[in-house]
Amino acid sequence: MANSKYEYVKKFEMDDKLPACNWIIVRIDGHKFHQCLYRKPRHNKYKLFQFAICFLRSFIWKETSQLYDRRASKILSLSVSYFTSLYVIKWKDFFPHKGLKETPCFDGRIVLYPRAKIVRDYLSWRQVDCHINNQYNTCFWMLVKSGKTKKEAQERLKGTLAKDKNELLFQQFGINYDKLPDIFKKGSCVYKDTVEETLKPDNGGNPVKRQRQRVTVGHFNIIDDRFWDEQPNILREN
Amino acid sequence: MANSKYEYVKKFEMDDKLPACNWIIVRIDGHKFHQCLYRKPRHNKYKLFQFAICFLRSFIWKETSQLYDRRASKILSLSVSYFTSLYVIKWKDFFPHKGLKETPCFDGRIVLYPRAKIVRDYLSWRQVDCHINNQYNTCFWMLVKSGKTKKEAQERLKGTLAKDKNELLFQQFGINYDKLPDIFKKGSCVYKDTVEETLKPDNGGNPVKRQRQRVTVGHFNIIDDRFWDEQPNILREN
Amino acid sequence: MANSKYEYVKKFEMDDKLPACNWIIVRIDGHKFHQCLYRKPRHNKYKLFQFAICFLRSFIWKETSQLYDRRASKILSLSVSYFTSLYVIKWKDFFPHKGLKETPCFDGRIVLYPRAKIVRDYLSWRQVDCHINNQYNTCFWMLVKSGKTKKEAQERLKGTLAKDKNELLFQQFGINYDKLPDIFKKGSCVYKDTVEETLKPDNGGNPVKRQRQRVTVGHFNIIDDRFWDEQPNILREN
Amino acid sequence: MANSKYEYVKKFEMDDKLPACNWIIVRIDGHKFHQCLYRKPRHNKYKLFQFAICFLRSFIWKETSQLYDRRASKILSLSVSYFTSLYVIKWKDFFPHKGLKETPCFDGRIVLYPRAKIVRDYLSWRQVDCHINNQYNTCFWMLVKSGKTKKEAQERLKGTLAKDKNELLFQQFGINYDKLPDIFKKGSCVYKDTVEETLKPDNGGNPVKRQRQRVTVGHFNIIDDRFWDEQPNILREN
Repeated sequence: MANSKYEYVKKFEMDDKLPACNWIIVRIDGHKFHQCLYRKPRHNKYKLFQFAICFLRSFIWKETSQLYDRRASKILSLSVSYFTSLYVIKWKDFFPHKGLKETPCFDGRIVLYPRAKIVRDYLSWRQVDCHINNQYNTCFWMLVKSGKTKKEAQERLKGTLAKDKNELLFQQFGINYDKLPDIFKKGSCVYKDTVEETLKPDNGGNPVKRQRQRVTVGHFNIIDDRFWDEQPNILREN
Repeated sequence: MANSKYEYVKKFEMDDKLPACNWIIVRIDGHKFHQCLYRKPRHNKYKLFQFAICFLRSFIWKETSQLYDRRASKILSLSVSYFTSLYVIKWKDFFPHKGLKETPCFDGRIVLYPRAKIVRDYLSWRQVDCHINNQYNTCFWMLVKSGKTKKEAQERLKGTLAKDKNELLFQQFGINYDKLPDIFKKGSCVYKDTVEETLKPDNGGNPVKRQRQRVTVGHFNIIDDRFWDEQPNILREN
Repeated sequence: MANSKYEYVKKFEMDDKLPACNWIIVRIDGHKFHQCLYRKPRHNKYKLFQFAICFLRSFIWKETSQLYDRRASKILSLSVSYFTSLYVIKWKDFFPHKGLKETPCFDGRIVLYPRAKIVRDYLSWRQVDCHINNQYNTCFWMLVKSGKTKKEAQERLKGTLAKDKNELLFQQFGINYDKLPDIFKKGSCVYKDTVEETLKPDNGGNPVKRQRQRVTVGHFNIIDDRFWDEQPNILREN
Repeated sequence: MANSKYEYVKKFEMDDKLPACNWIIVRIDGHKFHQCLYRKPRHNKYKLFQFAICFLRSFIWKETSQLYDRRASKILSLSVSYFTSLYVIKWKDFFPHKGLKETPCFDGRIVLYPRAKIVRDYLSWRQVDCHINNQYNTCFWMLVKSGKTKKEAQERLKGTLAKDKNELLFQQFGINYDKLPDIFKKGSCVYKDTVEETLKPDNGGNPVKRQRQRVTVGHFNIIDDRFWDEQPNILREN
């Protein structure tokens, strides 16, 4: 075959299979890109769990997942490409009158976690981060809106603690931080749930029930135990 | 800081710096995606060379490149994301009346080559592949257009050599394969060139010349020596 | 400094830190080397557990171990070198009248296990292997001793099951396989244990007890639960 | 087969094949071990070149070598084990009346170099290092021999340049550093050479010549061009 003379170049492709029995997380972040789309994250049948804050996404696969034969490049590049593609396509549905000013570009990385417990800590880390950033940004933009320069706003916030920022929002702008929408304070979780549906009664008049899989999107507290106690399947280890 | 309790999860992020002094190629391919955009590839200041066939791209960086500190995840994910983003954004400029039927999704991988000579063989491999695929596809779709089913077309082409396919195109459809546009037969190369411009003469009437960098897009034969003899800078090793 | 011009060669040394929170096993095997030393394995303060069959060794470190900063090359090369060194040095103590016919040479590899449960399965795998090999070898060498050629011995054993081999040993050579020493059938385990010592009574005549760490070497069944129930500390996860 | 239940543990063994077309260097160093054996390094048919300073060894394989299928663990562990084994075995030949005080233990690492030119720079780096260390150590031990404490010797040498050390050796101890044996100043190179032998004349009385491979051990200057000009085969790239 005509190409055989050059085919030796393929042997430079290295094996990049991820080690077995590790939870796979792909974390995606905007790269020099700051236009945020607060839309309901789309679920994908292959993923176990997704945590989303604006354009910061964490996709999680079970430690037993055989997705793309666990090849790192495939998992990373397809996750990032699929996310980018949907982001651009959906933009106009959310902002029909406001075009994209920049070319949305996202970077991603794979992190492996050998235990479900660490995956939970990872998610807590992300949610705490979401909260800290959101609180800071809320203060910052309220200060800017009220006439301060960006530099002045930055100066005003330097060294302030969480409770100082809450106080500032309340005293100066009448905002109760706790009342802000959870989507901003807690981010979004997307996962599949099994629910029991009651169907039409059968001929004998007995109610018929059925287990059904459902995609759930919510803005839960995923730091405390409650959510995980109610959803024991998500991080169950094999 | 409130987040410190969970920050240990960061230590699971592995170093993924690519070894020094290796040419970096990111090869991108459509994933279950078959709508092709034959547009002039966009140049990016960081890349050395790009070879494009429809949605199959090879981005090349010099062996000395320090792009993103040579971190594999950054280079792979940003290449794929940037390409995906432009693909979706530019689609409507080329096909204003034909929407995207699928969500364009691309996978990518990084391959490292320790010598310029192997990079050149890699590019030959890609161009031979482009030629083989294009010849097959031209025959296939002409047969389908002429009334054959896809299965029949496939059967007709099984086992045929290059010259058989050329013969088929010429005898049955009056197509001289060699006359088809080079963009299909040879793919596209994109790279930066230095050209000499002649500016307005100076006060003494002497012509003023200036070296200028220019992005070149062309459908060259990159298998033979000629192109590389004329462009010795592209694959020059440090 | 005179050497600085060449020091750039150091940047080709890649980071090879093993991922956190994985149990580390170094498995060492003889390389074209077949003279076996059935000596009591030496304990090393850094290792958690060692499983030894002749020159086949498995060294295990806890998933939290920070030995040599978890650098793979250090852990692998020093384990293999230390083992080789002791092997050669101790040889003459065991075989004062029989020199080494070959240069003992061992290869090794690192395997990571994300869960204690899999480490236990790994050890079971090794012990089953020990048993299978030992049973085969006992039969093989008894047949050879009794006058068969090596080829005939091999033929005789082809396709035989465990119970066939036991039968052969008993019928033909009067050997009850179960009565053979455990060191051959089960290999050796080496680990540290905490024991309670009773010291001399104190002035009031009360017995004084003290916890002490002790190196234990034994030929235990490590497939069944009993050993692990009695030694819960060895594979306890953090 | 009885072992199949546990054999899944093998799938945790990762592929560790080294990338093609890279020169392979294994660098071995003594680990907390300071008894030096200045013996003629042993050649091994598989290696291309060896550079030795006391217990610091650099083994080099050609970029095309397929040794152990280029598996990193095999190459590293067997190099280190073989070296350790010989070190211990040969000790008594060199020091029949002086036993080993410590268990000799060596660590090793693999470094890959994509170009012969960098391999040469690596060797220069090692030889410069050999010279610097040897000069320092010669001064240090002469000072200690002359009655200084180790601390005083260290203090005396702090901040001195090469020429200061030469001066010190000459003035205080009458030693001309340049006259010291090359084995200490330049280390040892081991490689295979092709030489032409003249055999007995044939029947017609004509001299018969034959090419023969010979192992050469020497203490050459491998920083300057001369050695490499005379031995162009060693670092010739394919």
